[in-house]
Amino acid sequence: MIVAMQENATDEQIQHVVARMVEVGFNVHRTTGAVQTILAGVGRPGQFDHKDFELLGGVAEVIRISSPYKLAGRNFRPGGTIVTFPNGVKIGGDEVVVMAGPCSVESREQIFLSANQVKAAGAKFLRGGAFKPRSSPYSFQGMGLEGLKLLREVGDETGLLIITEVMEISQIEVMLPYIDCFQVGARNMQNFNLLRELGQVRKPILLKRGIAATIEELLLSAEYILAGGNYDLMLCERGIRTYETYTRNTMDISAIPVIKHLSHLPIIADPSHGTGRRDMVPAMARASVAAGADGLIIEVHPNPEKAVSDGAQSLFPEQFSKLMDELRIIAPAVSRTIAEPAAVPVA
Amino acid sequence: MIVAMQENATDEQIQHVVARMVEVGFNVHRTTGAVQTILAGVGRPGQFDHKDFELLGGVAEVIRISSPYKLAGRNFRPGGTIVTFPNGVKIGGDEVVVMAGPCSVESREQIFLSANQVKAAGAKFLRGGAFKPRSSPYSFQGMGLEGLKLLREVGDETGLLIITEVMEISQIEVMLPYIDCFQVGARNMQNFNLLRELGQVRKPILLKRGIAATIEELLLSAEYILAGGNYDLMLCERGIRTYETYTRNTMDISAIPVIKHLSHLPIIADPSHGTGRRDMVPAMARASVAAGADGLIIEVHPNPEKAVSDGAQSLFPEQFSKLMDELRIIAPAVSRTIAEPAAVPVA
Amino acid sequence: MIVAMQENATDEQIQHVVARMVEVGFNVHRTTGAVQTILAGVGRPGQFDHKDFELLGGVAEVIRISSPYKLAGRNFRPGGTIVTFPNGVKIGGDEVVVMAGPCSVESREQIFLSANQVKAAGAKFLRGGAFKPRSSPYSFQGMGLEGLKLLREVGDETGLLIITEVMEISQIEVMLPYIDCFQVGARNMQNFNLLRELGQVRKPILLKRGIAATIEELLLSAEYILAGGNYDLMLCERGIRTYETYTRNTMDISAIPVIKHLSHLPIIADPSHGTGRRDMVPAMARASVAAGADGLIIEVHPNPEKAVSDGAQSLFPEQFSKLMDELRIIAPAVSRTIAEPAAVPVA
Amino acid sequence: MIVAMQENATDEQIQHVVARMVEVGFNVHRTTGAVQTILAGVGRPGQFDHKDFELLGGVAEVIRISSPYKLAGRNFRPGGTIVTFPNGVKIGGDEVVVMAGPCSVESREQIFLSANQVKAAGAKFLRGGAFKPRSSPYSFQGMGLEGLKLLREVGDETGLLIITEVMEISQIEVMLPYIDCFQVGARNMQNFNLLRELGQVRKPILLKRGIAATIEELLLSAEYILAGGNYDLMLCERGIRTYETYTRNTMDISAIPVIKHLSHLPIIADPSHGTGRRDMVPAMARASVAAGADGLIIEVHPNPEKAVSDGAQSLFPEQFSKLMDELRIIAPAVSRTIAEPAAVPVA
Repeated sequence: MIVAMQENATDEQIQHVVARMVEVGFNVHRTTGAVQTILAGVGRPGQFDHKDFELLGGVAEVIRISSPYKLAGRNFRPGGTIVTFPNGVKIGGDEVVVMAGPCSVESREQIFLSANQVKAAGAKFLRGGAFKPRSSPYSFQGMGLEGLKLLREVGDETGLLIITEVMEISQIEVMLPYIDCFQVGARNMQNFNLLRELGQVRKPILLKRGIAATIEELLLSAEYILAGGNYDLMLCERGIRTYETYTRNTMDISAIPVIKHLSHLPIIADPSHGTGRRDMVPAMARASVAAGADGLIIEVHPNPEKAVSDGAQSLFPEQFSKLMDELRIIAPAVSRTIAEPAAVPVA
Repeated sequence: MIVAMQENATDEQIQHVVARMVEVGFNVHRTTGAVQTILAGVGRPGQFDHKDFELLGGVAEVIRISSPYKLAGRNFRPGGTIVTFPNGVKIGGDEVVVMAGPCSVESREQIFLSANQVKAAGAKFLRGGAFKPRSSPYSFQGMGLEGLKLLREVGDETGLLIITEVMEISQIEVMLPYIDCFQVGARNMQNFNLLRELGQVRKPILLKRGIAATIEELLLSAEYILAGGNYDLMLCERGIRTYETYTRNTMDISAIPVIKHLSHLPIIADPSHGTGRRDMVPAMARASVAAGADGLIIEVHPNPEKAVSDGAQSLFPEQFSKLMDELRIIAPAVSRTIAEPAAVPVA
Repeated sequence: MIVAMQENATDEQIQHVVARMVEVGFNVHRTTGAVQTILAGVGRPGQFDHKDFELLGGVAEVIRISSPYKLAGRNFRPGGTIVTFPNGVKIGGDEVVVMAGPCSVESREQIFLSANQVKAAGAKFLRGGAFKPRSSPYSFQGMGLEGLKLLREVGDETGLLIITEVMEISQIEVMLPYIDCFQVGARNMQNFNLLRELGQVRKPILLKRGIAATIEELLLSAEYILAGGNYDLMLCERGIRTYETYTRNTMDISAIPVIKHLSHLPIIADPSHGTGRRDMVPAMARASVAAGADGLIIEVHPNPEKAVSDGAQSLFPEQFSKLMDELRIIAPAVSRTIAEPAAVPVA
Repeated sequence: MIVAMQENATDEQIQHVVARMVEVGFNVHRTTGAVQTILAGVGRPGQFDHKDFELLGGVAEVIRISSPYKLAGRNFRPGGTIVTFPNGVKIGGDEVVVMAGPCSVESREQIFLSANQVKAAGAKFLRGGAFKPRSSPYSFQGMGLEGLKLLREVGDETGLLIITEVMEISQIEVMLPYIDCFQVGARNMQNFNLLRELGQVRKPILLKRGIAATIEELLLSAEYILAGGNYDLMLCERGIRTYETYTRNTMDISAIPVIKHLSHLPIIADPSHGTGRRDMVPAMARASVAAGADGLIIEVHPNPEKAVSDGAQSLFPEQFSKLMDELRIIAPAVSRTIAEPAAVPVA
């Protein structure tokens, strides 16, 4: 921590600040300049709030130096993390992995059709919500356990990995037998109790950035999961709230290279929630891969106009297939690959 | 819902949109202007996503007309809601009610001292956290049940009402016997399962605005609680995230008159979290009362420099007392009062 | 400037950073901690961009210490600036001074009526635009020189001081004979050539905060004017752009105490542009005074429903008069006064 | 315009609103629903502010239907605009055109070296500032006329087109003989007088989005230039201000497909200002092309560490060359091309 004193700070004020720094556990180095005095605290202090120092007499500015996350930082694993799934799919390696499927599991027919369509285009994961958080109490709330069972069944049949959202601690146990990857939604990015529990789980986690979260806050939330010993963690950029309202959110594509720079964790892009509009999804999916994303999670529905939720941001299957072709052109620009289309049995 | 067609929309496109509107349950009135066609959907449609219509061919713009909240709207109770507590304290009436106390319950001595100090200055509620959500996994996480018991004890002894934060469903039952009012924190504003449960409770709730929530989203979250039958609900403005970083958040004082205009629910202001800096709290507390807030919730600590959490934004007791005097001058400008200082037994 | 090196920075990298710091003119103090090395640059370096250092090998973080503004800082005049006008009106002293009037000068009758109305209620300045910046090329663009002459005439007759907006350098000379105070609009806050010219003028300036400007940027813009030798400068908070769209802007009331803390310059609040809605203006005007503003600038129109511009945010004269009464109750809470109503000749 | 009345609006209130709508020039169609009345105004009204209607008694919401820009809208030229330069270079066609060069013209040697480097890599334009707007009055302000002459000279010698920033009306005449394209900076996006003058010029314009401007506001500013008869106009996304501070701005990549959807004007991306950090520029440049940008404008400097301005966001020449190679891989994914490297004479 650095404390820059005001130009007119008295020696008494400086002594008081030094004493408080020592009290919380710092060794203090004092630099007296022509204009002002600077106090550098080094060492490993205990818990304290650096904001407390801002209000001490004579203090101009307080700067926290060490990043508040450790396990999530790039230094912890300079080579980068690769998350490996039981069937051998790897995220964070040479291949850009695509997760696709409908917002919600709606019926057996819908989820099987979706799975075959996204698999045919080259997706490796099927996404689909069984428990839905909805901003209105009057909206569809998901199929629950029945939806989970359908997801497992279709996963087993198609070989697709299953990713779905966990909304609270009590759902973790329920979900474990049915899924391959937990997704933590943007609204739960700072649900620290949930994160702590997920740190105890031994299944991969996809942690989405909150709608108003800084990248540093996302990494701090990641720290909660890593601190529990679960290192199979991926982050996800899905759009942040800004003053621009034409798109539902403003997708922060720059978060992709920034997270690559600051952390060793893989980063997935979600252009569906990032834009909220089907017609903008392909452009943002392409941009994400070009910017270096390790994967994509995209909403695709057999018939978006009839979807019970998020239809406006779901791609038609043929749009998704065309997008995958475009991504195959782009991936080599970042020394990556995208899976080829897969043969699926005729329905 | 209004659908404005593009200037060059074909008749076929218009017919398709009309058909879809009828399908979701609207009666459609068509207005053909010199420049463009406008379709007004009236009636009471079933569940649908108005965004679906934005992407239909020939559509220029889709506008949702009816507000998505009903019970939280001003029309539901034009005279405004007054929440009455067992000891007769009313929020939403003539008196601006002040809630004050430390961020966390730290010890028996600290919480009794805090209670006496804030009561002496005129506060009617003691605030204090027993379960603490912290953005770092390495920070103090609260005293838990022991803290709740201390709160109840000091509440009974001083006559102060007790308000504390509930972080998840499992805590509701635990807290019920000890507290007078549940506080839902900004991070849980869209924890819809928690809100739904609180709708079943018969104790007042203070619902804080999320750090990136619009006022409409806050009212929609209120709807979850009201829909469960719990009408003893108060809202709270505590600062939103903007690009300005000098203050921890930007306190949106205008939310106070806007919520008064849109809703019947009382609105409380939290200048401590709204600014994050003790030296800005009094100015923002005064501004809140001048703007028409029904109450304030303020962090006060017997010794802020030693507080285990949020010390930088906690007032010294003497600052709080001075602030209350200033508020007593301001309240009459909005035809309100603030309680006089209370006599407290010498410690 | 402080440069915090990464934990694994090599000695070579550290030496390179030190060399670059010396090159731009710093004396460098090196602190080697258990975890990382910190380099503190002191002294008075020449021009350089501290961001250049962020990208040097091994650097974790670069922190600029000295504030980039000098003349605008509180230290420059700890007692605060009072701007005194020829007729003795002072801004920054005991009285909260109110500026009021229509958005645009529309006609002789309208501006004389406006002047009498705002004077009667206690305003000391008449505001009114002669040159109007409009976001659509198809809107009313102001009366120009004729408007300036009307403003001067009504100022002389009523004793009100005249404040109006200057939009470009070529207007300065034109305006000088007619007005008492230049207003620089939010869109011109970083029109540095205009600011530089206004630094040469010997008339007071009101500088509005840009819609997306930080407080630090506002103070840097102030520095341009002060550096030219014009110290009769006032700042103005008029709302910033955030994600909340119910109000036209989010008025940052906390900017008032923050600017008081960081700078010696008086701070005026503009609740009309801050909210964009007449029904929210009184609450925000009261909040501004309660938060410590040195003055207010408010749009008032004899008949807002017929105003050629900004009618929706202009108060009716009787609303303004009632507001002034409320402000007279609030001002003593911050040890200030507001002028009493003035007798004006019957029209 | 649509006016949605409140559920409890009286017939008198409705009549008053209808009368006001007729007064400003609308034909009004009234739709009486089970819940509320909706008034649709059609036709071509005169100038009015739709916000005035929001405050009339009984009004719930007012919605402006027709977009406020006409000439900038996609409908005006459904096929899209192609800007053709005298040497045959086209922007908006099959080729993604790259503009590159230093932030400022610093010397004859620097600008000639820069030109050769960017030309060799495939750039078609040389960018470079002669007049610099700087946020601190104490920073380098540009070489002025001498810089313009150097730009012309190097343009003639290399065949590169010259683009440079115009900051005020008085510079237009000065610049005309020396440059091929005017750039309007983000801070001047709403300098309407400057835009109006540029509408009279017969040289192409690149108009940058303001740091807090919505896409609609950018198109409205474009309207000012188009309304003057200058149709050789290009827009530029260069990052917007959000709460995230790791990058200097948040580059809104989604603005690229959105502008393509709403307007016929070409859209250029500026990843240098969009990120402010050299190490993030290549990722964002690639993302921009993948998202469909018609061109890029990138800061490249022969020795960024010695640049007098914006060194931290300027690429090294070899980085730029590598980036161009990556872009050549990506362009076919959006059915575009990028120019091949050019042979340049050995220095």
